[in-house]
Amino acid sequence: MRRAEKPSKEECNRSLMAVKDALYVLNGKWKLPIILTLTEGPLRFKELQRKIDGITARVLSKELKELEQNEFVTRTVYSTAPISVEYNLTPYSETLDNVIIELSKWGMQHRERIFSKSKQERELAA
Amino acid sequence: MRRAEKPSKEECNRSLMAVKDALYVLNGKWKLPIILTLTEGPLRFKELQRKIDGITARVLSKELKELEQNEFVTRTVYSTAPISVEYNLTPYSETLDNVIIELSKWGMQHRERIFSKSKQERELAA
Repeated sequence: MRRAEKPSKEECNRSLMAVKDALYVLNGKWKLPIILTLTEGPLRFKELQRKIDGITARVLSKELKELEQNEFVTRTVYSTAPISVEYNLTPYSETLDNVIIELSKWGMQHRERIFSKSKQERELAA
Repeated sequence: MRRAEKPSKEECNRSLMAVKDALYVLNGKWKLPIILTLTEGPLRFKELQRKIDGITARVLSKELKELEQNEFVTRTVYSTAPISVEYNLTPYSETLDNVIIELSKWGMQHRERIFSKSKQERELAA
């Protein structure tokens, strides 16, 4: 997808299908933040919810179930009293490292851009 | 976010915020496919809809409006009869190249993985 060499139609279709596949699996705004949060180490449900600002228990539970189904996350139940449940990343989740790194870099530059644009606008208005 | 050197808590939070920022702007399953489709060159609304399998006119119109607001896409109206409207990528959309490349690579390997897993399962069942 380099702009210098225009992509062939076939390349474009292959990429399009692959990006759609990826977005289908990673759908929504929570899955990658959940995975990123678990890179620090395994967490219990409540801890995870606390760290991911703005997610409800219902949504977190649904997202974790989907992440488990897609083999990004394991769920371990400990027979403590009360029972505790811990979530951890699988080795397969590491295949997403580059996706997360690029999204993170992009997010940082986008924030910078918006910040410097609004600064410029304030200066022009002053 | 290299797993070998465990990320610091601060790095993790910065990344988490950046990934959330990025997903906030790129929300949904259509924006990146639309951008990817326009890398082939400018397209009219109908052409774009035909190329992106499964999108309704209503959703495409909404997504294009948001892409315009975030300066990824320009909309040009030509005073032909009937009027024609063309969508094209901005230079800023190119900042997403690496994100799209990594998502595309990941989608391809994920498809391979699912394919070889279901093949294995079929062989075991035989």
